[in-house]
Amino acid sequence: MPPVQHLLFPQANGDCCIKSGYLEGDDQFVVKVSGGFYDNPAQGLASNQGLMMAFSAQSGEPQAILLDEGWLTALRTALAGRIVAELCAPKHIHAIGIIGTGMQARLHLMYLKSVISCRQLWVWGRSETALEEYRQYAQEEGFEVNTTQSAAELAAHCQLIVTTTPSREAILQAADIQPGTHITAVGADGAGKHELAPELVAKADKILVDSWAQCTEFGEISLAFQQQLLAHHTLTEIGTVLVQNSSFREHDQQITLADLTGLGVQDVQIVKGILRG
Amino acid sequence: MPPVQHLLFPQANGDCCIKSGYLEGDDQFVVKVSGGFYDNPAQGLASNQGLMMAFSAQSGEPQAILLDEGWLTALRTALAGRIVAELCAPKHIHAIGIIGTGMQARLHLMYLKSVISCRQLWVWGRSETALEEYRQYAQEEGFEVNTTQSAAELAAHCQLIVTTTPSREAILQAADIQPGTHITAVGADGAGKHELAPELVAKADKILVDSWAQCTEFGEISLAFQQQLLAHHTLTEIGTVLVQNSSFREHDQQITLADLTGLGVQDVQIVKGILRG
Repeated sequence: MPPVQHLLFPQANGDCCIKSGYLEGDDQFVVKVSGGFYDNPAQGLASNQGLMMAFSAQSGEPQAILLDEGWLTALRTALAGRIVAELCAPKHIHAIGIIGTGMQARLHLMYLKSVISCRQLWVWGRSETALEEYRQYAQEEGFEVNTTQSAAELAAHCQLIVTTTPSREAILQAADIQPGTHITAVGADGAGKHELAPELVAKADKILVDSWAQCTEFGEISLAFQQQLLAHHTLTEIGTVLVQNSSFREHDQQITLADLTGLGVQDVQIVKGILRG
Repeated sequence: MPPVQHLLFPQANGDCCIKSGYLEGDDQFVVKVSGGFYDNPAQGLASNQGLMMAFSAQSGEPQAILLDEGWLTALRTALAGRIVAELCAPKHIHAIGIIGTGMQARLHLMYLKSVISCRQLWVWGRSETALEEYRQYAQEEGFEVNTTQSAAELAAHCQLIVTTTPSREAILQAADIQPGTHITAVGADGAGKHELAPELVAKADKILVDSWAQCTEFGEISLAFQQQLLAHHTLTEIGTVLVQNSSFREHDQQITLADLTGLGVQDVQIVKGILRG
């Protein structure tokens, strides 16, 4: 996987990242263009944009262009979140907390259902309308839903929290989080984005990252890392934990944090899944 | 322009680079996937592969996918070569030398015609068949053509030399080059590729680069740069010279070298030209 390319479009409140990857021995390599244009919904367009492409690793010829409008990115991110929940979630979860009301907030909840039995839900959003729409969705998925515009209130009730927004300022503070909480942070995928206060990141007992290089450069933990608040933390890559076939969480009082920036190899795998299907 | 992404496919003798760019104020941004698979011709396929894409800078939506199989990359590279020839070529050219017989060797010659009046041509290639095919092409373009499998012989006759191969070993040596020669090197666009001996690069009196960052990392001059042979050279970016609106060559005895790795902004401009057209 080459380093991710980032483009910024401040005039449109948008950003774009370009990821690519190739698994040795595969028939194809994958290039993914993934945009987030956060004023799109006001124009009746989805925030997530982009496409995925497969090219022959033997001849370089284009094999497939998947005009998925970011859906496959959201899907593989939600699936990564499910894997992380299996590795990190505490045994007893009274409520799940979702920060954000967009596509990732929905897909993530849908995939959590199969590994987390809890059906109590808190959801945080800035817009009452979006919160009500999310409530509808989550109720249909079988959850009892509480909405709030206070992230602290959500954190007080929830032991498994997922942050899914493109925020550029902290939504959750260190004081909000109780011992025994797991947080999966998926929103921060570019420089300047973060949803957690750096002091909250530093408060985590254990930190899981999808890529050390990406997360320290532009992930949720990058601000705390660059402020040298993580000098006493080990940043463990998910792949390492999966190979060991063990849980990441050691006991129920730990605060665990997983930072998912998204890997080109995830795009490779989901495109392969589709081309095979 | 984010840094270029590179993928390598050693089992297929192929490589791929991904370039992207956005000019502030433009309606679109551009992503380009450009592959070179050098065993393709034996299968009846072109070596150059890939496509260019335009996306809205306002919403991120895909606007156009240009399945050009690398042709637009070759075209904009040849056009850059024409600009470089105007800045660097000596006044008196007895013969033009082309190293390589592929698509870039053809397009480059076609575009040189309008700025260089010389119609004497030497062409170097490894295959007699490819040389004869190139001779046909160049004769139809109005050139008197000499073919050779000795790059030194070519260099002895030519004052304007263009290197267009994906070679990973030096084709031209320092001793081959006469004072008053200009060389445009376009083949080296990824780590490990080079067509000129590092000592030849160091022998140049003046060096022009399309991007300091790209050329020192993976361009023709990168090997000499990394071996610290260029400590006494100034690496001048083409944009700087164009803004000054002056020639780069100062007198007819200088050896000048231009290293073109290709810029995402060239892809932006050629896609804009097509979408407008």
